[in-house]
Amino acid sequence: MPATLRDVAELAQVSVRTVSNVVSGYAHVSERMRQRVLAAIEELDYRANPVARTLRTGRTGMLALVVPEIDVPYFSELARDVIDAAAEFGYRVMIDQTGHDHERERRLLMGDDRTMLFDGILFSPLVTKSELLDMHRSEHMPLVLLGEHEFDGRFDHVAIDNVRAARDAVAHLAASGRTRIAAIGAQPLEEYSTPLLRTAGYEAALEEAGLEAPPEYATPAPHYSRTDGYGAATALLALSPRPDAIFCFSDLLAVGAMRAVFDAGLSVPEDVAVIGIDDIEEGRFARPSLSTVSLDTPFIAREAVRRIAARIDDPSAPAEEVVAPHRLVVRESTAAV
Amino acid sequence: MPATLRDVAELAQVSVRTVSNVVSGYAHVSERMRQRVLAAIEELDYRANPVARTLRTGRTGMLALVVPEIDVPYFSELARDVIDAAAEFGYRVMIDQTGHDHERERRLLMGDDRTMLFDGILFSPLVTKSELLDMHRSEHMPLVLLGEHEFDGRFDHVAIDNVRAARDAVAHLAASGRTRIAAIGAQPLEEYSTPLLRTAGYEAALEEAGLEAPPEYATPAPHYSRTDGYGAATALLALSPRPDAIFCFSDLLAVGAMRAVFDAGLSVPEDVAVIGIDDIEEGRFARPSLSTVSLDTPFIAREAVRRIAARIDDPSAPAEEVVAPHRLVVRESTAAV
Repeated sequence: MPATLRDVAELAQVSVRTVSNVVSGYAHVSERMRQRVLAAIEELDYRANPVARTLRTGRTGMLALVVPEIDVPYFSELARDVIDAAAEFGYRVMIDQTGHDHERERRLLMGDDRTMLFDGILFSPLVTKSELLDMHRSEHMPLVLLGEHEFDGRFDHVAIDNVRAARDAVAHLAASGRTRIAAIGAQPLEEYSTPLLRTAGYEAALEEAGLEAPPEYATPAPHYSRTDGYGAATALLALSPRPDAIFCFSDLLAVGAMRAVFDAGLSVPEDVAVIGIDDIEEGRFARPSLSTVSLDTPFIAREAVRRIAARIDDPSAPAEEVVAPHRLVVRESTAAV
Repeated sequence: MPATLRDVAELAQVSVRTVSNVVSGYAHVSERMRQRVLAAIEELDYRANPVARTLRTGRTGMLALVVPEIDVPYFSELARDVIDAAAEFGYRVMIDQTGHDHERERRLLMGDDRTMLFDGILFSPLVTKSELLDMHRSEHMPLVLLGEHEFDGRFDHVAIDNVRAARDAVAHLAASGRTRIAAIGAQPLEEYSTPLLRTAGYEAALEEAGLEAPPEYATPAPHYSRTDGYGAATALLALSPRPDAIFCFSDLLAVGAMRAVFDAGLSVPEDVAVIGIDDIEEGRFARPSLSTVSLDTPFIAREAVRRIAARIDDPSAPAEEVVAPHRLVVRESTAAV
């Protein structure tokens, strides 16, 4: 029979309530008392089961990775890299999906009950900037944000330079001789950061290249999905003048856009060049292979795990922002013609 | 200050050890005593934190979905469907990845510590049949197995008819006039069920069609990845006579195989027809669109969650096996020429 709280209390010569307070992490226990209880816990190897041990150590050895949609390849490939990186730090990772549910994201950041099963959260949010400003859970639960840009310094954050990534993609299209460059994923319905920042990069690159684009060249894409890309590209191809290049805000959008070009009886890259962002494996095997801006997900994963591990060990450490590198990868879909 | 174990013990007029035994789920507590303790827990609303509540109820409201690789689209799309189905039953799902690590799978089934954070496990294993026979954790942790076939009735199991699925794919190729039909994913290095069963279906369909295939037409694929498909197809295309059709044991293999055909200067479906199994979204947008055997993942997910929910409520319920339907989906990659 494993040791009970009472056994611990007897050995430490304190009340059961004091032991309970210590293992629950409540304040109002003197350091001297706490040490006495911890020594007794150690000596008796008090751990009725893993959940009880969680009470004792306050650690589960598990991180939660929270993403909007696990069936989006960018997130599933990021998850793979996070799992690999976490293993090097001795953590296991479980993946949670918010499913574009803002309310769920908010509850999670405000401190959903179940998040207490984890030592820390790696969070790739869809929340808008103003929503994020309302959240203040980070003092209680170690949290690292992934992928967005322009937070306010209260959160650990591994960012992407979204403006620059978009600018690099569009500058490449312009340098390849394309003059009518459209965008899929711009014009967000809500004030999400990523689409706004990538739209800013798109517009900056057009201006730098001395190009203009009619407003209808910047099209929305609610879910960055293949279906969204297909629908948006089909609409773009019906415009006059027709775009000769499409910059998609994700590779998945670009895969859908390429299929739409073929179904319209046109060719990629001959009639329309297509480029994405992400560098998912699907794009490397697509036909034609997809040019993209490669986000360094192994770097993002490693930095995120390094930050969360540091924060778990020292919850009062100042928040840190790391910007992950990216690079243009030119493949068949944007070949000059 | 929330109620402690001692408060509960005082109200129930039992020892703290008895309360501890009840919340830990140990035996050797009479039912009368247990009811008295539970009544006191109820009255005091004893729950220092969610972990403590887990001790009390023995439930976390969480299921674990364990898959070999989360960045394989079949598994990430299955995960999406499982999350949706679980929500209807009031469960949340966290995803765990074994990464083709047999030892990790084994530990998990034998009762990894951390699995106790979950009410049940949905498990898509890579373990071999003989390994599975050694496992006997299901009495302790509700478990439903996914996707394989031919278990021994000790586990709840949502199966695919792998033999029939493979036979349907190959019969379609034969009916389309293909006579030199190769397979990628056969010849497993270890005694995994899925490749063996699909190979049996491949061979049965060839025989039914009166076709023969040289042994080198059945090629291995260690990870069912795009890269594996590319490499295996490249090797197949160098054979003489060259296959005029390739049956791939997964859509991901087929995506890689199609790219290999193009890179060899040949066409799909004109020179080589290609078909997969799974029906991942990537295949619908590929060029040409990929013929496949569609596995009904929403059905698999729903049945798996229904089974695990029933087993959590009644751990002694007899194990059940459900076979998920599948159907042939003919697209451009196997058009008759």
